[in-house]
Amino acid sequence: MTAVIPAGVTTARDIVRPALEASLERLTPTMREVAAYHLGLAEAGTVAAGGAVPAGTASGVGGGKALRPALALLSVRAAGAPAERGVTAAVAVELVHNFSLLHDDIMDGDTERRHRATAWTVFGIPAAILAGDALLALAQDLLLEDGGPQGRWAARCLLAAVQRLISGQSADMEFEKRRSVSMDECLTMAGDKTAALMACACSIGAIFTGAPPSLAMSLADFGSHIGLAFQLVDDLLGIWGAPEVTGKPVWSDLRTRKKSLPVVAAMAGPPSADAASHQLCDLLGRPDPLTEDDLSHAAWLIEDAGGRRWAEEEATRQLEAACKCLASTPIPEDVHAELTEIARFIANRES
Amino acid sequence: MTAVIPAGVTTARDIVRPALEASLERLTPTMREVAAYHLGLAEAGTVAAGGAVPAGTASGVGGGKALRPALALLSVRAAGAPAERGVTAAVAVELVHNFSLLHDDIMDGDTERRHRATAWTVFGIPAAILAGDALLALAQDLLLEDGGPQGRWAARCLLAAVQRLISGQSADMEFEKRRSVSMDECLTMAGDKTAALMACACSIGAIFTGAPPSLAMSLADFGSHIGLAFQLVDDLLGIWGAPEVTGKPVWSDLRTRKKSLPVVAAMAGPPSADAASHQLCDLLGRPDPLTEDDLSHAAWLIEDAGGRRWAEEEATRQLEAACKCLASTPIPEDVHAELTEIARFIANRES
Repeated sequence: MTAVIPAGVTTARDIVRPALEASLERLTPTMREVAAYHLGLAEAGTVAAGGAVPAGTASGVGGGKALRPALALLSVRAAGAPAERGVTAAVAVELVHNFSLLHDDIMDGDTERRHRATAWTVFGIPAAILAGDALLALAQDLLLEDGGPQGRWAARCLLAAVQRLISGQSADMEFEKRRSVSMDECLTMAGDKTAALMACACSIGAIFTGAPPSLAMSLADFGSHIGLAFQLVDDLLGIWGAPEVTGKPVWSDLRTRKKSLPVVAAMAGPPSADAASHQLCDLLGRPDPLTEDDLSHAAWLIEDAGGRRWAEEEATRQLEAACKCLASTPIPEDVHAELTEIARFIANRES
Repeated sequence: MTAVIPAGVTTARDIVRPALEASLERLTPTMREVAAYHLGLAEAGTVAAGGAVPAGTASGVGGGKALRPALALLSVRAAGAPAERGVTAAVAVELVHNFSLLHDDIMDGDTERRHRATAWTVFGIPAAILAGDALLALAQDLLLEDGGPQGRWAARCLLAAVQRLISGQSADMEFEKRRSVSMDECLTMAGDKTAALMACACSIGAIFTGAPPSLAMSLADFGSHIGLAFQLVDDLLGIWGAPEVTGKPVWSDLRTRKKSLPVVAAMAGPPSADAASHQLCDLLGRPDPLTEDDLSHAAWLIEDAGGRRWAEEEATRQLEAACKCLASTPIPEDVHAELTEIARFIANRES
């Protein structure tokens, strides 16, 4: 087990990045600047009007881990095609992921992402809304440009994931205002918000290169499980993660009363943890703002009620389920090994 | 010349409405409620979770004039196919139009549209952002569901219009902060913000039913001209329209210092109107909020500097150019007559 980004992910990022940058050149200069900043390809104010994203000004951050493009390229290779044939699909998934981040950051009022100020705080809410819209439309166009039924099918799979992203984000925000959320509701929300696009990333390359549906579906299943594992770890880091590593303020999810998976698990904890569960419900249900002491106490209650342990164990179960999907899927051995490595990384990452 | 909505537009709305309602059933209940409210198909709080939009609760407003779906159906008939074959394309255009309205209302801070509170004021900004996203994705999926290259091509035309919508809205907002805007910049902005989707509406049905590109391009040209005429009239109504008819507050565009076409024309007025032009520039360039007297004075200055007359005459010129496009396009006579009637309505409407 390791928390180091797998080498294959970094390689994939290098393969995809030129195509990602080239795709942004189709946008107007204003939208390109917002998108390039958000993607970590440039700092604000460095994109020359009318020109390409200048390589010299590229940010060192590089826009997140880029797991989804790596998974998309692996799904191409899973179907026996060379990774290069799936670059468009990988770019499309990454664009949709970033469309959703641009809009989510506005909705959640988040001011920091990937150790940098979020796009809406730099360029304003209108520009960030429009840039998100532009990335969603661009992703579609890239897939459709590639003639043939595969592009169309890949585009529709991505659209289905977009509708689930929307549904998940909508539920996530609604839950913040609710006193109680059931485990089922919370798992559905996480499935929509995170697993759906991960499932799409893990299968879109195969779909785009004409793989049989049975292979695409197995890969999507794998993606669903690692997507849930990803969200579980994300939720754990959102409470107990080190801010200097995650790039998010400490207890950020508790502050907004997010009904994340560990929180809901704690609220619905076993009878033996009833006292802690009740205290947690009361604390998060209070109408007044939560103090630092409240937040620290809430984190402790979640742990005491078993929410932390459940989420850790569930992440492991999802990792195992993901590996089981792969075991019965006919894919090349090296692809199998790389997918497993990414799945393990997702379940053990620290940021 | 008349300002009564052409009968064909109302008929088209009746043809398209069931498909539009059916399309919303693909959304989650939360998104469906926001979309149905925004589209004027229901009032807030009336959409049952999991159910269809109940007919009994439909708003009498009916969501605007629905010119674009009518144009889309006419473009099908222009290609010699029955209108019914273009219903999906008409729905897709209307969904994209409303995606942009949902997001624009947030960005512009508009609180009223079609005599009702805007969606973001009723459901909150996050829900309105997500509902816009959902409509954009839904529009794409409807076109792609219809197998074959035409659906794909129609989807790409619509995506191109979306990128221009984004560009136009971005420029429009940027202009509000600028002291001066050239006529060329302003015409490009209006072309992007309004004419592009109108051009798409006028040709997407033809494209969707496999008409020859030459016909689709002539129809798009026609649409571009009526789109510009539409924007010119919109700008005139935004300053001198009767609030009880337009459903917008009086002088609403001046209040936000919109560099609309009549304003830019007045600022760049003839030498004989230099004094009024300068006073207008000074007045709109002031940093402090504009009083009612300022707004009334600004409207008068725009008129004095010739901005109103220019916009009225330009709308007529665009109407004539649109009619000229049709004259040389081989389409059935009844379709020609109906398109001309809509073009005239657009140039002479009062709301």
